Amino acid sequence: MEIFDRLESEVRSYCRSWPVVFNEARGSYIYDESGRPYLDFFAGAGSLNYGHNNPVLKSELIDYLAGDGIVHSLDAYTTAKREFLQTFGDVILGPRGLDYKVQFPGPAGNNAVEAALKLARKITGREVIVNFTNSFHGMTLGALAVTGNSMKRGGAGVPLTHVNTMPYDNYMDGETPDFLWLRSVLEDSGSGLDKPAAVIVETVQGEGGINVAGAEWLRGLADLCKDHGILLIVDDIQMGCGRTGGFFSFEEAGITPDIVTLSKSISGYGIPLALTLFKRELDVWGPGEHNGTFRGPNPAFVTGAAALNHFWRDDELQKGTAAKGELIHRRLSAIAEEFAEAGAHVRGRGMAAGLAFEREGAAQAVSREAFQRGLLIETSGPEDEVAKLLPALTTTEEELEQGLDIIAEAARAAVKISQPA
Amino acid sequence: MEIFDRLESEVRSYCRSWPVVFNEARGSYIYDESGRPYLDFFAGAGSLNYGHNNPVLKSELIDYLAGDGIVHSLDAYTTAKREFLQTFGDVILGPRGLDYKVQFPGPAGNNAVEAALKLARKITGREVIVNFTNSFHGMTLGALAVTGNSMKRGGAGVPLTHVNTMPYDNYMDGETPDFLWLRSVLEDSGSGLDKPAAVIVETVQGEGGINVAGAEWLRGLADLCKDHGILLIVDDIQMGCGRTGGFFSFEEAGITPDIVTLSKSISGYGIPLALTLFKRELDVWGPGEHNGTFRGPNPAFVTGAAALNHFWRDDELQKGTAAKGELIHRRLSAIAEEFAEAGAHVRGRGMAAGLAFEREGAAQAVSREAFQRGLLIETSGPEDEVAKLLPALTTTEEELEQGLDIIAEAARAAVKISQPA
Amino acid sequence: MEIFDRLESEVRSYCRSWPVVFNEARGSYIYDESGRPYLDFFAGAGSLNYGHNNPVLKSELIDYLAGDGIVHSLDAYTTAKREFLQTFGDVILGPRGLDYKVQFPGPAGNNAVEAALKLARKITGREVIVNFTNSFHGMTLGALAVTGNSMKRGGAGVPLTHVNTMPYDNYMDGETPDFLWLRSVLEDSGSGLDKPAAVIVETVQGEGGINVAGAEWLRGLADLCKDHGILLIVDDIQMGCGRTGGFFSFEEAGITPDIVTLSKSISGYGIPLALTLFKRELDVWGPGEHNGTFRGPNPAFVTGAAALNHFWRDDELQKGTAAKGELIHRRLSAIAEEFAEAGAHVRGRGMAAGLAFEREGAAQAVSREAFQRGLLIETSGPEDEVAKLLPALTTTEEELEQGLDIIAEAARAAVKISQPA
Amino acid sequence: MEIFDRLESEVRSYCRSWPVVFNEARGSYIYDESGRPYLDFFAGAGSLNYGHNNPVLKSELIDYLAGDGIVHSLDAYTTAKREFLQTFGDVILGPRGLDYKVQFPGPAGNNAVEAALKLARKITGREVIVNFTNSFHGMTLGALAVTGNSMKRGGAGVPLTHVNTMPYDNYMDGETPDFLWLRSVLEDSGSGLDKPAAVIVETVQGEGGINVAGAEWLRGLADLCKDHGILLIVDDIQMGCGRTGGFFSFEEAGITPDIVTLSKSISGYGIPLALTLFKRELDVWGPGEHNGTFRGPNPAFVTGAAALNHFWRDDELQKGTAAKGELIHRRLSAIAEEFAEAGAHVRGRGMAAGLAFEREGAAQAVSREAFQRGLLIETSGPEDEVAKLLPALTTTEEELEQGLDIIAEAARAAVKISQPA
Repeated sequence: MEIFDRLESEVRSYCRSWPVVFNEARGSYIYDESGRPYLDFFAGAGSLNYGHNNPVLKSELIDYLAGDGIVHSLDAYTTAKREFLQTFGDVILGPRGLDYKVQFPGPAGNNAVEAALKLARKITGREVIVNFTNSFHGMTLGALAVTGNSMKRGGAGVPLTHVNTMPYDNYMDGETPDFLWLRSVLEDSGSGLDKPAAVIVETVQGEGGINVAGAEWLRGLADLCKDHGILLIVDDIQMGCGRTGGFFSFEEAGITPDIVTLSKSISGYGIPLALTLFKRELDVWGPGEHNGTFRGPNPAFVTGAAALNHFWRDDELQKGTAAKGELIHRRLSAIAEEFAEAGAHVRGRGMAAGLAFEREGAAQAVSREAFQRGLLIETSGPEDEVAKLLPALTTTEEELEQGLDIIAEAARAAVKISQPA
Repeated sequence: MEIFDRLESEVRSYCRSWPVVFNEARGSYIYDESGRPYLDFFAGAGSLNYGHNNPVLKSELIDYLAGDGIVHSLDAYTTAKREFLQTFGDVILGPRGLDYKVQFPGPAGNNAVEAALKLARKITGREVIVNFTNSFHGMTLGALAVTGNSMKRGGAGVPLTHVNTMPYDNYMDGETPDFLWLRSVLEDSGSGLDKPAAVIVETVQGEGGINVAGAEWLRGLADLCKDHGILLIVDDIQMGCGRTGGFFSFEEAGITPDIVTLSKSISGYGIPLALTLFKRELDVWGPGEHNGTFRGPNPAFVTGAAALNHFWRDDELQKGTAAKGELIHRRLSAIAEEFAEAGAHVRGRGMAAGLAFEREGAAQAVSREAFQRGLLIETSGPEDEVAKLLPALTTTEEELEQGLDIIAEAARAAVKISQPA
Repeated sequence: MEIFDRLESEVRSYCRSWPVVFNEARGSYIYDESGRPYLDFFAGAGSLNYGHNNPVLKSELIDYLAGDGIVHSLDAYTTAKREFLQTFGDVILGPRGLDYKVQFPGPAGNNAVEAALKLARKITGREVIVNFTNSFHGMTLGALAVTGNSMKRGGAGVPLTHVNTMPYDNYMDGETPDFLWLRSVLEDSGSGLDKPAAVIVETVQGEGGINVAGAEWLRGLADLCKDHGILLIVDDIQMGCGRTGGFFSFEEAGITPDIVTLSKSISGYGIPLALTLFKRELDVWGPGEHNGTFRGPNPAFVTGAAALNHFWRDDELQKGTAAKGELIHRRLSAIAEEFAEAGAHVRGRGMAAGLAFEREGAAQAVSREAFQRGLLIETSGPEDEVAKLLPALTTTEEELEQGLDIIAEAARAAVKISQPA
Repeated sequence: MEIFDRLESEVRSYCRSWPVVFNEARGSYIYDESGRPYLDFFAGAGSLNYGHNNPVLKSELIDYLAGDGIVHSLDAYTTAKREFLQTFGDVILGPRGLDYKVQFPGPAGNNAVEAALKLARKITGREVIVNFTNSFHGMTLGALAVTGNSMKRGGAGVPLTHVNTMPYDNYMDGETPDFLWLRSVLEDSGSGLDKPAAVIVETVQGEGGINVAGAEWLRGLADLCKDHGILLIVDDIQMGCGRTGGFFSFEEAGITPDIVTLSKSISGYGIPLALTLFKRELDVWGPGEHNGTFRGPNPAFVTGAAALNHFWRDDELQKGTAAKGELIHRRLSAIAEEFAEAGAHVRGRGMAAGLAFEREGAAQAVSREAFQRGLLIETSGPEDEVAKLLPALTTTEEELEQGLDIIAEAARAAVKISQPA
């Protein structure tokens, strides 16, 4: 591993938790170069909702490449792009009654967020974006401004402006009615809040600690936005593509955001792809007003279309996610009960789950112990206080049980370790 | 093509110049779905320096995928990443005596730029970045702030700040000594220029109109930065990876930038990948201070390492680029001479070339006419006044002659069309 | 009045409520050029706490001018300045145990605020200032950024940044515990609040609608600032100089702000003068780092010292303010009770009082009717929903009764007028 | 002087050059408390163009105060204000054919600048202001952003944005044609300069080092602004009110700025007063959109009107300024010639004059030596390289000769002292 130390920047992060060199992967398993298997309950932080190297997608991808299908052609029209758009329209947008237009803003989630913020500001002529405590939207300057984490904000090197942060659902432990503060400042011309262009929200905050916004809260937010002529952006990069059950994580709440961002699992195969969706009437972009080199990664279109065709033409995946989500929740609840003294509790929706600890260091210890036992999970939350589970949606119940067994064991070891003197 | 109209945002751009649906590509040729071939002198705006679907790279990529090599694993260590780093160190950095560390900042060029700007500001504790007239560095908020084009800047929706623009080499037609203005404001404590963190520069401005900075100017800039304790960032996203001859476009000038950005052709196959390089002592990042989902696109590592191995272990490619660059320049000069009345002239270095016209609309007409005749080129410059050529470095001399014949014909048709009444 | 229409900008404001030309003034009375007297309960928005043209101050001022005392000498040392500083130290700072240094930042309150914000940012190296809903701190760009009123903010023409607004005491009708939101975001590293340099607060918000912060709330705020290493700035421009009783409005709460701004009544005679006070150890200014032409208006020093000597060497004024404040509150309460249907209620502390109406337009109508009857008051609050009383502290009880009689009559006429159909 | 050390902030500045306590002043003389006279060639940095305590103005001021004329009434109509406006219209605007409206933006020059910038941005909907190297416009955040001095900018504590600095006339020693850079970036849509709202310029930069803009340059600037729909703001705070000859310093160039700021000598007596003037059609302010406490300092209106009546109803003052300006220039030129070895040279226009030295420390030594000999002057320029003379316009030729004799002696002593070893 010397080459990494010598050549790769100190900024590298996940490799520090998992100090092995990975080599192969299939489904819910990833293998290091010694051949040791790891059950992967992190799934590329939500980029591998269909598991590693799904054989159906793999086959289509290899065929495409073998046939000299176009790999790169900027944002020119290609057959792969047409197929993806057609499928996305037929399988996802149409059945959900969503009259969205699709922008390919660049390959990464932050590109989707940057495009969303730019568009919202352009449409409204306003600058301020309302975001929420513990939100995470990316590392480029526009996306970072709406991200809560102070360490990451500190990396900007310039003040991050044009943003006003509001309390996320249940942020202050239910001591205040929903939107009391946001509604107050919006309705008061003396509040000092310059009228916002948009609100950007995650339905479940993955990086922020698996904080879940209730459906009622989301509906309240959508209504508030509508009442005040503010655009609603749902950043569905981590929670979209079925992570919480439905394809979009906001479906359950019955709301229709003005703008939606997608990335991570949208290519279905871990290849960079990002989408910004917006209501047809909001498509005020001029040609090339937002551009970039990797706006049309055709291999991602190929696997993306294959994933939509394979997983979203019926409701099997969605039902499975619900059932498996319950399984995870039930098992984690039992574990949390066992470690009540460490302030353990469960968070989550669908197959995004968190085992949170009030005791400092406990979640990190669980993650470390799990790795020792052949399970990949990570921590999240501002103090890394949550062990975070994002298993592939295709993980079998057996694999889930096996992984949760490891977590239970890891928790036993970890909670002991983290015990205050 | 109806599906594109119906579902894709109006922001789409290149497809408007080339209103066909592309399907396959090999080397310097791309084919539409009717099977019509187009000679591609745009090469993904510099992303396909080794041509479309190079068979060596393709073979390695397909093998990797077929063997269930890891596609996505955030920034965990993988064998593919190790191989890439090792090769990049051995083939590129070592022989050039560059003691750089490598950051994988995200999949797109703008991620590389954003990371570079953040790092420069973090290191120096200063905010201002000096950029140059007609620069292009990307569409995310930080990168857009250092981009000159007013239409693209207008898309930001917020004022773009912390930037001070200086005249690029020869900007004012040689009427002033190099750096007269920049040096003056740096040396004058009353100038109003807050001391900059860094200067960001392209050695040849691709989007800006194939404006070439002379080697002496680049050395002067490097000296000026050194004298004033300002970091020098070379954005080599479009001109790096051999476009102008050497692997880095700044080699010819004999300078060593503090920070370098790479993307586009670094994966060699059109797959998204970006690198930020910086001197070892500048690696002040904390773990995870800049993160992101697609920082380790392993397929790109595979093709990237293959490309380095295949093309950069000897100097054949570099020599070929020099020779082909001369061919292009000679042929374009003859064309320019023919259309002196339209203010035609030639710009460029290596295999980045431009045929500029003073007559409004002429370059766009050349591009249109060339497309009619089966050649893809695009325009650049603030008024689209330059027909821009970025053929794959692997384009044969025959293909180049053939393409330049088309350009000559296209120019004849175009200049006639664009003639003022 | 034609000359005003023809030559003065449309920005003029108070003259629109009082469309007469004033000529003379004595004590609590001001006269228009026809000789009609008006009881002045607005007192220069708090600039005339000792009434118009107080004879003691007037005599000293005229003597000074007659003797060719220096009027203007930038910030050179003068005998008038020495006398003022000596008196301010002896009469105000010393007895209150305040070890403050004094900056003369320019003639206007906004200069005092700008200097305070600059100093707080310079000391801490941070940018964000926490302000409160409905705050008012001035019209220059730095002061305007911490001002709540949206109409005034809209005049900036640039986004107003580096500010985070928090709810003022009782902002959300007591539905939430004090500082729940502020404390939450300060204690949460993922909240998105960049650590603030300072909090700026008015103890009573004059322009914001005579909103009163309780002593306990102010103490809580001071503690919170101390706990988090954030500077506390009290803007005492409108409420200082005895308006609420003690010389400083924060004395009652028993807190010691890090920085205090004073202006308005500090010269005692309506002549421009402003002070920024700060704890000795915070005096990190370099010589001339903040400068300006009118930092030493000697006539203001003369009247300012005379006012301190005359009014603040004993506690008579303070006691009188308490008694008169009670009188005002008692009378206003009776009026409010009479107009309970219009949602009338009383606000205030000391001799800063407000008669607020829920019924739209009622307060403005009261103000208009009062003017018809020879009384000057103004409205404040984001919707002009409060009739605001700031009578000179030297107003006699008889004058107060007389003015309050007018307000009662005006309210009767006004509430009738503003009655919804 | 102990009280100043103990109580006044370290930010104090001029008092450090003149460590005595001043007491009285008449005409061009100021006296310290020991009775020692000083010839005052600094005149309140241009605030005392009519000398200290001019007897005509003094008499009117004392009469006004004695008669209980209104001192403070916010921006209500007063007879004093009417008289001032009428006089300003009749004596200044009318004869010069200037159809300006008048805003009283607050008492200080920075208020006039802040109002000008806000208005320009409001009118155009743009943010960027173009300013010039070594400009000085004030210490409040908006005005500071367009000020060049790096020490003063450093006091802001936040990045100063929305400004683009251009070279002042002759900034680069005549090596480039006028406006080459500004014109280039305005005409190039790829230059990165967001279209400016306004240009702000001083005709002679007082703080910046008595840098003089030629009439032709000013006309060129006015034309360029007009061609590009950019507003032209002349900051005439230091050079207006006759300092360079005509009432406005831009009269000589024959241009009509869109917006003009005045302060310093506009009250004629050293009392704070500031005006923002703008073309009638630019008066888009809403009532109260920019407000403040000291917008109507009536004593300043009284002395201001008296000064206009006394000095500007004929051309005697203007002629005198021209003659005295020549005298100063002739004498300074002789001194400069004597000290050619120290790089001495003369700058200035009218009665704003500078004796600049290339030798470091020389100008400061001249200033110190002059003070020892009973003459007040100050230095300016980014390195304090210019001894700056702003004598009252009413200074007699004898007084001028006497002061210049002192400067000659001081220079002899100073240049010896500053001689390099």
